[in-house]
Amino acid sequence: MTEKSKVLLVGSGGVGTIASYALEYAGKTAVTSVLRSDYSKVVEKGFSIDSCDYGQVPVFRPTNIVNSVEASKEYGPFEYVVVATKCLPEIDSMIDVIAPVVTADTAIVLIQNGIGIDVEAKTKFPQNIVLSGVSMIGSANRNGHIEHEAPDFLKVGYFDNENLDQADMEKVCRKFVKLYSNDKNECHFDENVKFSRWRKLVYNACLNSVCALTGVDSGRLELFGGVDSIIRTAMREVITIAKSDGVELPEDVIEFMIRSDDPVYYCPSMLVDIKKGNLLEIEVIVGNPVRIAQRNDVSAPYLTLIYELLKVVQQHIMEQKGMITVPKERPVPR
Amino acid sequence: MTEKSKVLLVGSGGVGTIASYALEYAGKTAVTSVLRSDYSKVVEKGFSIDSCDYGQVPVFRPTNIVNSVEASKEYGPFEYVVVATKCLPEIDSMIDVIAPVVTADTAIVLIQNGIGIDVEAKTKFPQNIVLSGVSMIGSANRNGHIEHEAPDFLKVGYFDNENLDQADMEKVCRKFVKLYSNDKNECHFDENVKFSRWRKLVYNACLNSVCALTGVDSGRLELFGGVDSIIRTAMREVITIAKSDGVELPEDVIEFMIRSDDPVYYCPSMLVDIKKGNLLEIEVIVGNPVRIAQRNDVSAPYLTLIYELLKVVQQHIMEQKGMITVPKERPVPR
Repeated sequence: MTEKSKVLLVGSGGVGTIASYALEYAGKTAVTSVLRSDYSKVVEKGFSIDSCDYGQVPVFRPTNIVNSVEASKEYGPFEYVVVATKCLPEIDSMIDVIAPVVTADTAIVLIQNGIGIDVEAKTKFPQNIVLSGVSMIGSANRNGHIEHEAPDFLKVGYFDNENLDQADMEKVCRKFVKLYSNDKNECHFDENVKFSRWRKLVYNACLNSVCALTGVDSGRLELFGGVDSIIRTAMREVITIAKSDGVELPEDVIEFMIRSDDPVYYCPSMLVDIKKGNLLEIEVIVGNPVRIAQRNDVSAPYLTLIYELLKVVQQHIMEQKGMITVPKERPVPR
Repeated sequence: MTEKSKVLLVGSGGVGTIASYALEYAGKTAVTSVLRSDYSKVVEKGFSIDSCDYGQVPVFRPTNIVNSVEASKEYGPFEYVVVATKCLPEIDSMIDVIAPVVTADTAIVLIQNGIGIDVEAKTKFPQNIVLSGVSMIGSANRNGHIEHEAPDFLKVGYFDNENLDQADMEKVCRKFVKLYSNDKNECHFDENVKFSRWRKLVYNACLNSVCALTGVDSGRLELFGGVDSIIRTAMREVITIAKSDGVELPEDVIEFMIRSDDPVYYCPSMLVDIKKGNLLEIEVIVGNPVRIAQRNDVSAPYLTLIYELLKVVQQHIMEQKGMITVPKERPVPR
């Protein structure tokens, strides 16, 4: 029996836990999962999973469960370090968090939304392969119970890196795909994952963000006129920004994304987050595309205003979570 | 003793009730007030007023109190019909409501926010004088108790009307100012009330609307970066639209309006409305300026998006109030 590949997984939300289950499922991988809020619960009882791919899984425990990256060291070194957290670079750096276990041979796998999520990893670990996972799953972690409602469909490629050999990157990427793939899920090597990432952003930067801002699901947004008045314009901006970044999205991606929730009154992740008082992934989903637009001199007024509005909302959420405070007296210019 | 002027007043919120008090205060006017939700309460106990201008007024009853415009007829004919309701033209027409009591000699006085509020009155009553009241008051009606916190400062002019003689319109306007003015308030004839109306809109179309969209008061909006990133741009758009409509607002109106709530963490009216689940005055405050921009080929992307977002929010409020319903199954194209 060949030795199992060692994978560290950070971020056991709906996406991450199904990823760890998928990796363990084929029997070729030993996953060490770093848990924070769920740690004691999962050590004691495991996750329970209700999955459209795997059926009922009453108890699931990854091979190793630890409560910090530091504590994971004894189970390393890790061939892959998978980051499947929400991406909130303005709050904390996941790359700093995983840094202690990144060795010369570690590939970093970012299964996260947004654009520009690789910059920090590539700055701090310029000689490490960074893989790009674009996930199409529908899955939520409710207090240790995973409700996996839409099939796990994962595309994995590598983020460009001039320092590294493309064939090496592809090989390491294909190996990860092999470890992840099983007869229940869909996981493919994506030679143009940059395209897939921008493509997914067409939905997230527009429908996801505008549902959050207006407080309505994507079905109501359409019924109330917002898809016609806002979403198509904003999506066209994303397509133009992507083009300035070297990615040619077809025009029909707009209608595809608008119809992608049919026939559900679907609450996208940011709307769910805002209702729960959770922080929003605005920087990687809207902020970075807007910054690319500015850098490349692309006009994107709708996306820019959506971003600026969401930044205010985010600060308000931070205030409500006690992460920031406002002065008792409103500061005014003297 | 000369006979008192007869005034009908529709809309006894914070603004309207202080207006009726002001008109009665000088003793030259008999106000007939049309009340709906407050009718029985006010007939029985009167309004109570806690006023920065007039002090404590334990009981105030206008000369006549009626529960419909129809019922007001016996106290007419009215020299002035004052409309001080929230302006929600997409919901119902106040001009239709007052139509039964508008005679050939009635002047219609609109003490309401926004731009383009005169169009319907002038269409339906092209031979009647329509006066434009721009109010700077801070006042709220809480269940029959009026909390009047910021002084009543009212500018009154006339909406342009080619059918009528300017001297006549000015005379009728100046008479209203005389009836309204007393030693406790400030009410002036405004020969350029169109300017004053656009000037006030600089605040309302931008700060008021964006506080509503982001859910924060104007102080937090500034602290959280929204004044710098959103408000100045949107206000510049309003100035450009006003210019296309023949009104030259000075550039320094921007800083004046941004500082106008100092040093208060102030919740503008739309934010208050949204928190209470009330409908928002978006058509006259944002929609009409956007339509003028479109008509005059003025670029106003921020104001346009703010309007489109608020339209979705308004529909959501209407759904929550039971005024509209969405189909149980989300409609999808076949």
